[in-house]
Amino acid sequence: MKILDNGMCSISSIKVNGYREGKYGVAIIYHENTTAVGVYTTNKVYAAPIDITRKHLENGNISAVIINSGNANCYTREDGIKRGLELAQVAADYLNIPLEDIAVASTGVIGRQMPLDILKPIAEESLKNLGNSRENITLAEKAIMTTDTVPKECAVESKLEDGTVFKVGGFCKGSGMIAPNMGTMLGFVATDLELPSDVLQKALKKAVKKSFNMVVVDGDESTNDTVLLLSTNDVKGNYDSNFQEALDYVCMSLAKQIAKDGEGAEKFLEVTCDGAKTEDDAITVSKSVVSSSLVKTAVAGADPNWGRIISAMGYSGVEFNPDIVSISIADKQNECVIVDKGTVKTYEQPEKLEFAEEIMKSEDIFITVNLHDGDCSATAYGCDLTYEYVRINAEYTT
Amino acid sequence: MKILDNGMCSISSIKVNGYREGKYGVAIIYHENTTAVGVYTTNKVYAAPIDITRKHLENGNISAVIINSGNANCYTREDGIKRGLELAQVAADYLNIPLEDIAVASTGVIGRQMPLDILKPIAEESLKNLGNSRENITLAEKAIMTTDTVPKECAVESKLEDGTVFKVGGFCKGSGMIAPNMGTMLGFVATDLELPSDVLQKALKKAVKKSFNMVVVDGDESTNDTVLLLSTNDVKGNYDSNFQEALDYVCMSLAKQIAKDGEGAEKFLEVTCDGAKTEDDAITVSKSVVSSSLVKTAVAGADPNWGRIISAMGYSGVEFNPDIVSISIADKQNECVIVDKGTVKTYEQPEKLEFAEEIMKSEDIFITVNLHDGDCSATAYGCDLTYEYVRINAEYTT
Repeated sequence: MKILDNGMCSISSIKVNGYREGKYGVAIIYHENTTAVGVYTTNKVYAAPIDITRKHLENGNISAVIINSGNANCYTREDGIKRGLELAQVAADYLNIPLEDIAVASTGVIGRQMPLDILKPIAEESLKNLGNSRENITLAEKAIMTTDTVPKECAVESKLEDGTVFKVGGFCKGSGMIAPNMGTMLGFVATDLELPSDVLQKALKKAVKKSFNMVVVDGDESTNDTVLLLSTNDVKGNYDSNFQEALDYVCMSLAKQIAKDGEGAEKFLEVTCDGAKTEDDAITVSKSVVSSSLVKTAVAGADPNWGRIISAMGYSGVEFNPDIVSISIADKQNECVIVDKGTVKTYEQPEKLEFAEEIMKSEDIFITVNLHDGDCSATAYGCDLTYEYVRINAEYTT
Repeated sequence: MKILDNGMCSISSIKVNGYREGKYGVAIIYHENTTAVGVYTTNKVYAAPIDITRKHLENGNISAVIINSGNANCYTREDGIKRGLELAQVAADYLNIPLEDIAVASTGVIGRQMPLDILKPIAEESLKNLGNSRENITLAEKAIMTTDTVPKECAVESKLEDGTVFKVGGFCKGSGMIAPNMGTMLGFVATDLELPSDVLQKALKKAVKKSFNMVVVDGDESTNDTVLLLSTNDVKGNYDSNFQEALDYVCMSLAKQIAKDGEGAEKFLEVTCDGAKTEDDAITVSKSVVSSSLVKTAVAGADPNWGRIISAMGYSGVEFNPDIVSISIADKQNECVIVDKGTVKTYEQPEKLEFAEEIMKSEDIFITVNLHDGDCSATAYGCDLTYEYVRINAEYTT
C-alpha cells in the first residue's frame, strides 16, 4: 500500500473544488455516474440533507456532491428540503446534470434556515474552477471545515490479490469530540475500482465501524453525520480483502485526524481494549474509557490517574473481573504497565508512577486495557479535554 | 412540611461529628441500633467500603457510620477490606460496639491504599467530640467534602396521615457532574420514624430514583456511590405517602445541591421532559439533555442554542416525532417558548431569541421539553460546563 499526496484528487477522473467566505463554504465533488453508497447518523433528529441524499442514492448512481458549511439545514422541516434542493440546483444547472444525480451534505448551526442568498453565490464560485489539482482538493477540504483547525485527507494506492492496481482517497471534516455528542462528521471517500453498490455498501459499513464510529460514541451522533463512498468505475476488478484493507486504512486515518483535531485538543488519545469476550464488549470498553471526561482531563493534565480508567471500564456496562485486568499507558516510544493481571505495579514500584507521569506528558497517549477474558480487541480514538474546548463551545453560535 | 435548621442533628437522639486535616477527613454518625438500608453504585468496579457496608447491613441494624474523604479505598483488593475494617475498628473501640455494627463509606482517589497512619488519628479526633449540636453536624458535613465547595444538608418535619409527627434529615457530598461519570456521591439520611427495613429499603429506592439518580446518568456511576437511610426508631408509626414525600423532598434537595455545586459550575440547570410515553423515556430524554456537553457549554456561555437541545433529545435513543415537540427555556421569573409543537417561534419572531438570550444569563436555567406523546414526566439536574471544571480535573491527583 502506497500513500498518495493528493487526497481524493489522486483519482484523476474526479474533479473537485471549494470556496468559502467567512463561516460559509461550499465544496463540490464531480464525476459523472459514480456508484455511490452512504452511511448516516442514527440520531432520531436528522437533517434535511440526509433526507435528500438518501433519496438520490436510491438508484445507486450520482454525478456530483455539494457540501456546505455554516448551516446544518436541520430542524428546518419542509422548507429545509426545499432550500437544500435549491442549492443543489445551482450545481445541476452549472454541470448540466439532473437534480436527482446530486448528493448533498451540510454542517453548521442547527435550527436556522439556510441563507441561500449567501450560499448560492459561494456555490457558483466553487463550481467555476472545478479541477483535479492539489489546489482544488485543498480548497474543497477547507470549504467544509467548521471548528476544524486543519484540513483532513488520506489517499492510498494498493493492489488486489490478482495484481490489479486501484486507489482509495478521501477527505473529511469533524472536530469536537468530548462527549462526543459534538460537531458533525462528514466524510467523502472515492475509489476507482468498479464494484457493485451492495459490495460498496458492505465494505463502507465495515470500514466505518472500526474508524469513524470509534471516534463517535454510540448514539451520541450529530444530526448531520454522513459518510459517502463513491466509485468512478475506472478500474475493473473484484472485491477482496486488499480493497477492504485500503478502505479501512483511509477511513481510520481520517477518523484519527478528526480525533487529533478535537475542539481545543492538545493531545491525541488512543484506547485499545484487548482480551474481550466479544468485539462489541471491546468496542464498548474502549469507547467508555476514551470518552470519559475524567480520563480526558487527566490526559490534559498529564496525570497518570489509572483509577479513572478502571472506573470508566466499570461503568461501561460490560461484565468483567476487575481482579484480573491489565492497564498500561504508553507514548510512541515507551510503555508503562501499571496494573498487571490485577496487581497494581505502582504499589510495589512507586518509581513506575514517575515513569507513567513522564509518558503522560507526550503528545500522543496510548492506553491499553486487557480484560483477559477472550481474544477480541477494539481501538477507540479521542483527545484530551481542555479549557479551549469550553471556550469554543460556549461561544459557538455567537 | 416544615424545614428544620440543623440537618441530621434535627433528630435529637443522633450524635455526629467530623474532623479534617488537609485533604483527609473523617465523619462519624452514631446511634445505637438504627435500622439501616442502603443503595450503592452499579459500577462493576466498586470499592472495598461497599463490600463492608453491604455485609454489615445484612442483619438490618447498625450503630454507627464512619466516612472518610481523601482516599476511595477502591481497587485495593483484600488489603482494602482489611484497612477499611481497621479504620472502623477505631470507632468500634471508642464507642464500645461490635465492628459488624458499623457501616463505612469512602471518597477520594482510586487505586491507592488507605493511609491509616493519617486517617486513624483523624478518626479519633472526630470521635472525641460526638454531639448533637449545629457545630457537630457542620463538622461532619465538611469532613466528607472533596471538591465540594459547600456542605450540603436538608431536614424536614412532617406528619403522617394519622397526625404522628416525624423528622427526616440528611447530608451528602458530591460534585463534578459533567459527563457525569465523576466524583463519588455519598448521602446519609436519617429518620426518627420506626419502619421495618424492607419498607425503608423500598422508600429509599423510590426517593433515590427521582433525586440522586437524576443527577448521575445511568451507568456512569463512581466506584463508591452510596446512600444510606437510618431509622432511630424513636417514633412509632406506619409508612404512608407523607413519609415518602418527606424522604423524597430531602433527597431531592440534597441532589439539587450536588448539581449546583458541580465542579467549576456557575449555573444550575434543570431539565424536565413532559409528554413522554413512559417514565423511563422521560428519564432518558431529560438526562440526555442535562448531560450533553454542548448544552452545558451553551448554558455557560448564555447561548440559547436550542439546536443542541433537540440533538441531545434525538440521540437519547427514545423514539419520538421531532415535528411535534415543544422546547422552552426559563429562569425563575420568565419563560420563553422557542419551539411550539414543532413550530420554531424564533423564525417568525426573532425578538424571541433576544428574550431567550436574556433568560440564559440567569443563574438558574430551566429547560422543558414536551414530546406530546403521553403523560409521563421526569426532571434531571445538572450544571454548566466551565473552564474551572477542566482545571479542577486536570489537577485532581497532584
